[in-house]
Amino acid sequence: MPIVVQKYGGTSVADPGRIRAVADRVVRAREAGNDVVVVVSAMGDSTDELLAMATEITPIPEPRELDMLLTAGERIAMSLLAIAVNARGCRAASYTGSQAGIITDTQHGRARIVDIRPGRIEGSLAAGNVVILAGFQGLSTNYDITTLGRGGSDMTAVAMAAALGAEVCEIYTDVEGVYTADPRLEPRARKIGRISYEEMLELAAAGAKVLQLRSVEYARNNGVRIHVRHAHSEAPGTWVVEEGDEVEQVLIRGVALDDGEAKVTIDQVPDRPGIAAAIFKAVAAEGINVDMIVQNVSHDGRTDLSFTVPKEDVPRLEAVLVGLVSDIGAGRYTTDDGIAKLSLVGAGMRSSPGVAADMFDALAAEGINIEMISTSSIRISCVVRAHDAERAVRAVHQRFGLEGALLDGEA
Amino acid sequence: MPIVVQKYGGTSVADPGRIRAVADRVVRAREAGNDVVVVVSAMGDSTDELLAMATEITPIPEPRELDMLLTAGERIAMSLLAIAVNARGCRAASYTGSQAGIITDTQHGRARIVDIRPGRIEGSLAAGNVVILAGFQGLSTNYDITTLGRGGSDMTAVAMAAALGAEVCEIYTDVEGVYTADPRLEPRARKIGRISYEEMLELAAAGAKVLQLRSVEYARNNGVRIHVRHAHSEAPGTWVVEEGDEVEQVLIRGVALDDGEAKVTIDQVPDRPGIAAAIFKAVAAEGINVDMIVQNVSHDGRTDLSFTVPKEDVPRLEAVLVGLVSDIGAGRYTTDDGIAKLSLVGAGMRSSPGVAADMFDALAAEGINIEMISTSSIRISCVVRAHDAERAVRAVHQRFGLEGALLDGEA
Repeated sequence: MPIVVQKYGGTSVADPGRIRAVADRVVRAREAGNDVVVVVSAMGDSTDELLAMATEITPIPEPRELDMLLTAGERIAMSLLAIAVNARGCRAASYTGSQAGIITDTQHGRARIVDIRPGRIEGSLAAGNVVILAGFQGLSTNYDITTLGRGGSDMTAVAMAAALGAEVCEIYTDVEGVYTADPRLEPRARKIGRISYEEMLELAAAGAKVLQLRSVEYARNNGVRIHVRHAHSEAPGTWVVEEGDEVEQVLIRGVALDDGEAKVTIDQVPDRPGIAAAIFKAVAAEGINVDMIVQNVSHDGRTDLSFTVPKEDVPRLEAVLVGLVSDIGAGRYTTDDGIAKLSLVGAGMRSSPGVAADMFDALAAEGINIEMISTSSIRISCVVRAHDAERAVRAVHQRFGLEGALLDGEA
Repeated sequence: MPIVVQKYGGTSVADPGRIRAVADRVVRAREAGNDVVVVVSAMGDSTDELLAMATEITPIPEPRELDMLLTAGERIAMSLLAIAVNARGCRAASYTGSQAGIITDTQHGRARIVDIRPGRIEGSLAAGNVVILAGFQGLSTNYDITTLGRGGSDMTAVAMAAALGAEVCEIYTDVEGVYTADPRLEPRARKIGRISYEEMLELAAAGAKVLQLRSVEYARNNGVRIHVRHAHSEAPGTWVVEEGDEVEQVLIRGVALDDGEAKVTIDQVPDRPGIAAAIFKAVAAEGINVDMIVQNVSHDGRTDLSFTVPKEDVPRLEAVLVGLVSDIGAGRYTTDDGIAKLSLVGAGMRSSPGVAADMFDALAAEGINIEMISTSSIRISCVVRAHDAERAVRAVHQRFGLEGALLDGEA
């Protein structure tokens, strides 16, 4: 029997009524002749509520215990869903990450899956059950409960789909799929019918929140076909597949905006070998992820260095920079959280020069200044003022004709 | 190092502030030179809230999944407590029932412990941790999550104390200990300093809610000394120990009231062998626990049969009785939930005739009618009208002088 993995996000299971609606959908997939494995996130805001209780006790809760706490959220959602599916007369059994054989490393709060031992899940499917699985959690090689970080339920679904050889990993969410731009910013944005793993990776890295970056990477590496869909709609959503796999060739797939980063600039950095390494080693030692890095040309043996980091890491970063700036003999540092990063993604740009020029021109025509630029082979990112960001999205979206007619295979 | 097991009920950990207060107490026990194992119940009303969500989905949730759901409550409480103890600079680690090696049978919702494999807990203690343990839960011999029924956290604490050879099992609750009567009914009730297992068993069976009946039985069978105490007071509470173990010999230990039962009477039951067996087999097949049974003398080959059952089981019982009464050729049945059961418990009554007569006389002097009577070697129970119950408690409490001077060893 073909295996379908379905993952439902927290909004889709936020209350008993919505859990019943999800149960209906699960039962339909079962009755259509599939073996069904369902991965659930915690209900609504419950993860944040658990976290708030922990931080009411102490600002920095013990990581092992915080993971034990947060995994209660998925446990509640999955058992309620199993109760709802059973109440429909369709046999279902729920399993924790530990019971499902999801083995991780020991990094609490952001564990990585190192092995999947799906024997118990396979046995439960063979016994005729719908399997309901807690997202976001695993068992470490030390036998402690771990969590996989924000968006980790996507990772659970994709990894289990790979381990079971599922036909498809359906990611149910509160939007219709992946769009050419965030429809709240650009009402003319279109749903994308099919997108390649590479493009989806770039969009996710550029701030599109619909899929967790690591889960897309895992899907690409393991050939898992993802279908992103709305939890309470029958319309097809967005397929994330191999580049050649009926993905229509277009120049630009979509536009993404990330307003979660701040820009940091260090002035008058001595321009000699090893300085950049010293700076970014110190930053990495704090576990802070640096995104864009721009170094201007040198004048008089000194240069300015700018980079972007997640806004919430700025206080920890400043604690590092205070000492660092004087250690390396630089000038001063400034931080700026009034920025946003606009990215244009499309596999077609590999073979199409001039895309960057067109993008810059579209921004210039709107009088929007570009503060930083970085590129990959299929992405161009520009840092602009946050207050220009929405206009920038619309200008670029329009310049590349992304609001055009529906593509083949779309509703 | 001596091992102390401490169990905290849901009221004691109802919010982050109270969890911090419990953490202080745990750290003090550790600093006093003990290995400390803490068993926690779910926070406040959280078990009832989880149950309400399940029954909003379906009136009779799947038992395996309901157990999975309800165990989330203890998981949340235990990890928050472990976070609070760690925040005090005292290393603590929490473990689920499954991780702690609490193996049960497969009866979901009322599983019985069949084995304890405390290796991981012993290892954690040896590594210097305070161990925080989820009450109320275990892992079945089928590897499914189970719960131990109402009051099951007491059972977890006593069983783990037995398995670890603990010095004492401290049960922390929201009262000061076990009283000669419920202080809400009889303000002159006294806290009992020491009580024998047998007396505590009779009191618990007679409706005293401070300790779960099965946990007292397990403690007696395994020689676990229990100390019932208030979670936020330093005063000594009530020790539950062997009868010879410095338990002062008294005639009467205390009075208990149970208003949770209903009386059922079947009229005109044919008085021939096998009829009572037929009735109570049919009742037992529904999983309904019968408490008192009284059969009157026979007239003309027919008799009246009365018994008591938990009030919540009356609807299921009536479904059985409708057919049964005609099958056995009896008259009719009546149910009456306006009753209460008053019990007098004391090991001294074994050697002291006349206690029953004194009790009946005290009730008669108040004009209170007795509807049913049953006795054990150390208990006398009378069913009275519910509206007479409080007066009955006070009359009997006074007749046996239970409000008298404090006993040795009490605060």
